[in-house]
Amino acid sequence: MEVHYNADTPLQVRESKYPLQLLTENTPNGKKVQILLEELYDIYGLSWTTHLTDLETDEQKKRWFLHLNPNGRIPVLLDVVEAETVVSIIESSAILIYLQENYDERNVFGFDSAHEKSQAIQWLFFWHSSAPVQGHARHFMKGTAEPIPYAAQYFERAMLRIYSVLEAHLSGQYNGQSAVPREYLAGDGVGKYSIADMGTWPHVRGYRSLGFSEEIDMRPKFPHLLRWIDRIAARPGVQRGIDAGKQGRNGMTTL
Amino acid sequence: MEVHYNADTPLQVRESKYPLQLLTENTPNGKKVQILLEELYDIYGLSWTTHLTDLETDEQKKRWFLHLNPNGRIPVLLDVVEAETVVSIIESSAILIYLQENYDERNVFGFDSAHEKSQAIQWLFFWHSSAPVQGHARHFMKGTAEPIPYAAQYFERAMLRIYSVLEAHLSGQYNGQSAVPREYLAGDGVGKYSIADMGTWPHVRGYRSLGFSEEIDMRPKFPHLLRWIDRIAARPGVQRGIDAGKQGRNGMTTL
Repeated sequence: MEVHYNADTPLQVRESKYPLQLLTENTPNGKKVQILLEELYDIYGLSWTTHLTDLETDEQKKRWFLHLNPNGRIPVLLDVVEAETVVSIIESSAILIYLQENYDERNVFGFDSAHEKSQAIQWLFFWHSSAPVQGHARHFMKGTAEPIPYAAQYFERAMLRIYSVLEAHLSGQYNGQSAVPREYLAGDGVGKYSIADMGTWPHVRGYRSLGFSEEIDMRPKFPHLLRWIDRIAARPGVQRGIDAGKQGRNGMTTL
Repeated sequence: MEVHYNADTPLQVRESKYPLQLLTENTPNGKKVQILLEELYDIYGLSWTTHLTDLETDEQKKRWFLHLNPNGRIPVLLDVVEAETVVSIIESSAILIYLQENYDERNVFGFDSAHEKSQAIQWLFFWHSSAPVQGHARHFMKGTAEPIPYAAQYFERAMLRIYSVLEAHLSGQYNGQSAVPREYLAGDGVGKYSIADMGTWPHVRGYRSLGFSEEIDMRPKFPHLLRWIDRIAARPGVQRGIDAGKQGRNGMTTL
């Protein structure tokens, strides 16, 4: 949306002299954007400003923030599209697509062909509809004052089904005769590291927060998924992107 | 993905002589794609084949179907990208983006500018993560053998919050001084009818299936949302798209 600041919009947001500003916190949704920005820094030297948003005081529910995102959630990316026009980009997966399409001109983290580009978008959507399931699973498996066994089991099954889809896809079992395991979610053949992986990985790596253990719950059923988690974790840009203390390349402020 | 048929893939899918094949059923996720196809027919005369997929016998969980979509869900779009290469497109919102980017060359249902194009994608993601919440709400508000009041209330509140975000956005209250209501979800100013509306509308219009009533629950709190529902329902392409008996422009088969 075109952004309309109001009197309460923090000065460091309103008066920033840099185009790319990320309002974020170190959650999985925030991390995925931070990862792509770090990866784009490594390739193109991209710079941005980070504004850490205090979720514990519900800064993201205040009126000035709702002008940037009526959903009241981080991350939000602000960009300047013409001399005076600032736009806000919301929804973490949409921010990944926007940054890739507008700041990754060589398609290092995206694709040239229409059908492979679509693959990345397909897996971003697959995970975007899985993320709330993971949220509900965490709540009902671990977060209710009184246990609700039916709901806990319902969401545990839902999460295991979601992991099993990713496992089946990565295992290559639907890749025809060859059945070669995939390395990444999108792209022909074994795939290529892309925004699809960045959008999914910060959430999936957190399976322990649902009470699942690596050795008992995950390794026997989801070996390809665990290898994919490790493969992506090994990237320097990913490690910098999940570092809570990491500044934006134009610095960091606190909102 | 590149598609690998196996011996069980129905002949009418394997041997279709038309590029665009839609494996679908008349659910909200199916309807959104059928609506866009009908809209593209009205503008460009686009044609496709519809394969109705029997969800009651779990056709979409059979191995031949998992080769097209490891998630085991409709809709799936098959397209021919080179002489011999068939690709499958999964996730309803990703299918909308694929069709708009590849079959709507004048951007009638999309946008020319990068930031407006992103707006459509942002609202598609907003709804794509809301759809599972609606599914869970329906289950816990109406579908459990024994009532679970805590979970029913949890998801009722979650759905009302989602409607309130759409209402706030459509009301124009965050559009700065002018505060003119929006007509559609994406696009500068009052917005333009686009894939963002098509991706959201088939689900939101079903609020009655959660037990919400138009007069008591919806009209007092969400007047702009109800007007948006009516505005989109009035389109001929939308009405044809939600007609369960409507054939694809190249005919229909049953799987």
